[in-house]
Amino acid sequence: MKQLEMLKGHNYGDLILETECWFILLAPDQKNLGTCVVALKRKEGNLAGLKDEEWVDLKEIIKNLQWALKESFNSTMFNWGCLMNSSYLKDPPQPHVHWHFIPRYKEKVRFEGIIFEDPCFGFSTMKSNQGVRRIPEYARRKIIEKIRNNLKI
Amino acid sequence: MKQLEMLKGHNYGDLILETECWFILLAPDQKNLGTCVVALKRKEGNLAGLKDEEWVDLKEIIKNLQWALKESFNSTMFNWGCLMNSSYLKDPPQPHVHWHFIPRYKEKVRFEGIIFEDPCFGFSTMKSNQGVRRIPEYARRKIIEKIRNNLKI
Repeated sequence: MKQLEMLKGHNYGDLILETECWFILLAPDQKNLGTCVVALKRKEGNLAGLKDEEWVDLKEIIKNLQWALKESFNSTMFNWGCLMNSSYLKDPPQPHVHWHFIPRYKEKVRFEGIIFEDPCFGFSTMKSNQGVRRIPEYARRKIIEKIRNNLKI
Repeated sequence: MKQLEMLKGHNYGDLILETECWFILLAPDQKNLGTCVVALKRKEGNLAGLKDEEWVDLKEIIKNLQWALKESFNSTMFNWGCLMNSSYLKDPPQPHVHWHFIPRYKEKVRFEGIIFEDPCFGFSTMKSNQGVRRIPEYARRKIIEKIRNNLKI
């Protein structure tokens, strides 16, 4: 887990599972239920620098994570983004390859007594400017457990 | 070019080049100089449904397109996103797998007498709410020519 230590400063969230090349983490922001970060285990700041096996592994994660979220929370569809913008606010920039995985919901969902809505469904969530939605620790643990159980990795 | 006809309704922009599995197009919105759409040539609405060869081809495009944009316009870094949100505003939804490729610029760039800035550098462009920036046809043709010449595909 040395690699996970390396990523601590990035605030990607809590580990759900790791594959050979990637960490799958539950993102701090749960505006959209089940939002994850998929972060490379190796130090690399450029998407174009991925090795073939890392790219193949990512394809499997996309398939499995989407499936697990549909099973867990009946997500309607999914957004994937590799941005790394905020790394460039630092001088020098310290980008690290990671993906934002945002499940999108046509209908609101209730989980562990909490209501999750997706008021920007059909649009980018990044437009919303609603800030970070933090939820209680027990609910995060339950979400992680549910996704983990539905991941066929 | 039958497949390109199929994509007409999507308004992805003007063809720069095609690979075995993907079209690379210059997006209508040029707020960020050289913004492209990379659209699958086959009908498929789910990122998880990509075939292995399509995924491998995409990796080559990422590498080559980033290189070509650095060469052409000295872009600082790049955002990649697979969203397909607006397809879900229709009933039934008609998603088609495509990627948004947004070059980001720390410094402003002048090309063909036009100034391009990236006021949201370090943040998501999707936050900007600035609408679509259309530029004259001759400038689009020059951008396409320049990217095409620098693509090693």
